Amino acid sequence: MKAAILAIGSELLGPDRLDTNSLELTETLERHGVELVSKQVVGDDVERIERVLRQLAADADLILVTGGLGPTADDVTREGVARATGRELSEDPAIVEEIRRKFAAFGREMPEVNRRQAAVLAGAEVLENPRGTAPGLLLEHEGTTFFLFPGVPTELQGMVAHRLEPWLAARRPRPPRARRILRVACLPESRVEELLEPVYARFGALGILASPGDIRIRLEGASAAELEAVETATRECLGSAVYGTGAQSLEEVVGDGLRRRGLTIATAESCTGGWIAQRLTAVAGSSDYFVGSVVAYSDRVKREHLGVPREILERCGAVSPEVVALMASGVAQRLGSDWGLAVSGVAGPGGGTEAKPVGTVDVALFRAREEPSRARLRLPGGRATVRLLATQWALDMVRHALREEAG
Amino acid sequence: MKAAILAIGSELLGPDRLDTNSLELTETLERHGVELVSKQVVGDDVERIERVLRQLAADADLILVTGGLGPTADDVTREGVARATGRELSEDPAIVEEIRRKFAAFGREMPEVNRRQAAVLAGAEVLENPRGTAPGLLLEHEGTTFFLFPGVPTELQGMVAHRLEPWLAARRPRPPRARRILRVACLPESRVEELLEPVYARFGALGILASPGDIRIRLEGASAAELEAVETATRECLGSAVYGTGAQSLEEVVGDGLRRRGLTIATAESCTGGWIAQRLTAVAGSSDYFVGSVVAYSDRVKREHLGVPREILERCGAVSPEVVALMASGVAQRLGSDWGLAVSGVAGPGGGTEAKPVGTVDVALFRAREEPSRARLRLPGGRATVRLLATQWALDMVRHALREEAG
Repeated sequence: MKAAILAIGSELLGPDRLDTNSLELTETLERHGVELVSKQVVGDDVERIERVLRQLAADADLILVTGGLGPTADDVTREGVARATGRELSEDPAIVEEIRRKFAAFGREMPEVNRRQAAVLAGAEVLENPRGTAPGLLLEHEGTTFFLFPGVPTELQGMVAHRLEPWLAARRPRPPRARRILRVACLPESRVEELLEPVYARFGALGILASPGDIRIRLEGASAAELEAVETATRECLGSAVYGTGAQSLEEVVGDGLRRRGLTIATAESCTGGWIAQRLTAVAGSSDYFVGSVVAYSDRVKREHLGVPREILERCGAVSPEVVALMASGVAQRLGSDWGLAVSGVAGPGGGTEAKPVGTVDVALFRAREEPSRARLRLPGGRATVRLLATQWALDMVRHALREEAG
Repeated sequence: MKAAILAIGSELLGPDRLDTNSLELTETLERHGVELVSKQVVGDDVERIERVLRQLAADADLILVTGGLGPTADDVTREGVARATGRELSEDPAIVEEIRRKFAAFGREMPEVNRRQAAVLAGAEVLENPRGTAPGLLLEHEGTTFFLFPGVPTELQGMVAHRLEPWLAARRPRPPRARRILRVACLPESRVEELLEPVYARFGALGILASPGDIRIRLEGASAAELEAVETATRECLGSAVYGTGAQSLEEVVGDGLRRRGLTIATAESCTGGWIAQRLTAVAGSSDYFVGSVVAYSDRVKREHLGVPREILERCGAVSPEVVALMASGVAQRLGSDWGLAVSGVAGPGGGTEAKPVGTVDVALFRAREEPSRARLRLPGGRATVRLLATQWALDMVRHALREEAG
């Protein structure tokens, strides 16, 4: 079964509003294993609605329409469906009475315009709307099923739960597919693609969703066993680059690892300006392992509060492996944590040199009884991206160190 | 001129993502007086892309396509447009070289898959993408103009500004309306609505776009003079709640104010965990006025690195006006800044008490030669929202103090 979503309303074509109703509908369709082939938004234009509905009906078995069921002249969804299906609209006196009752319950008389909401397509079933005046409609026409829902989110949600859910459950187009998301840090999308070639070859395409420094890989299988086979193959290709699953964030995974090993951490940040601390503390309960941070935006703070000697700052520069190593050990010693994570870099747009262009970032991780970890990165992008990627690489360094500790 | 937007990407049909790029495009079209007739999302399916493009071309003169220009096998936008227009795709060696250079700049070799991004439609103009590897394409075909943009928001935004804007301006379907956005911090949307009643009465509805702690008000006028009248009326209603215009962020406005007065600032953060420092340092050149931060997530750090006496921590609690006042003066003294901004609060989900429920946040601003500012907030929402709102209120306290200084 293939579905399409059509949201109707000129306000959804402006720069301030998105059709967020479609997320709810999408989630419902996905859960029942229905493939969504397109989402579309059109304005309150009856001819365009007619044309688009005809196009969608050629491509989808199920069309979910939201919006345009209000009482005013620009609510033309009913007319658009009538034209697209060649069916008559006629007023249902029972609905008029129902709307009248709803107004009366608030001590008001029904405005005459609301009669429009009682228009029913020939052959359609009326979907009650307990949360508003506009009833929905359900119509089967030449092999395509049309659901017409109001656009008000709370009204829509109630009707999806009470009418669309049971309709889908009764048809159960196919058993819902097993799904899982794997998360990967600090590899470029194209590299992930290359690594996954053997999985493609065996199982077909995977869904890959990339954001800076973080990639989500969506795995699917017809059964739990098939999903597990895909997951095993994927993990074999990517190894330790997989940091988590589902909605897990890198900071959660790092936090869990620290807590499990009874370790505490502090950060010393220059170019990231507190962002690593912000991410670590975004996780509830992070005070179990996060002690604090020194954001050292001036050399004076690096000297006086992290103990980096002036001589080394002058000789090596604030962005250098030597200085970040001292920042990392300094913050751990002074804040009394087991581990210390430090970052210093050139985030841009200014401050780059030939030897240290914008995007140059040094990261160091001090660990009480181990050799420190270090990396010099060359990160792409503008100031915001360089800073974000620096936090990602730094947190991932902690994750790898935790894996080492675990053996 | 009529336009349609088509976003391509199977991930945009899932329950987690909306096509937010269309807002930017819509705003640009609206400013140039181009009517948007539909927005659509389809997955990475070359046949469906072809079919939908043919349908849209029958209805629109300008088609803006986003996404699907990546290097991987499921990036099929170029192929879809090639089929819909019957044009050949061929590799442009100059683009291959350009992509190779971009990888080399980061010391990496271009993966072979990235060659796909060098495929150009016959007759199309290549749109340079300074922020990524995927170039865009501009094609005029049988009376319809196709723009192909990458789906990565920052890349898209750059190309809209440098290529779509001038293209629209040169055609100028109707004189663009004068527009301006005013930005308001720390007022609820319903309060802004109330305050703006006189403006509505005189000029009609304004566009109001609310996000937590930050509201954008979109003003319009047929001429610069009319816009100015609307703006004057709006500012009269909102007074000092307006912190900036357009894309200005609160941290930029605060940073400008500090720089203009030759002042420096440091932050001492507990529940915000470095987020205020992160926001201040997101602004290029912030080292002119931002010295550093102590993220004091443990009482020990509050004592040893901010000088808050143990006795006061025990008597008043870490979330108290007394403690944040000492944190604010402590961080200014120890890091050597003129001003010190401190925040401590209960971000949740745990840690709330009857006297100090989740959402209780104390903020203090120490200023060398003035009375300190203080506030106790009761912020709504979950952990992430409480933390975000706390950074917003704290920065806005600095803004108000800067206004005071200015007299």
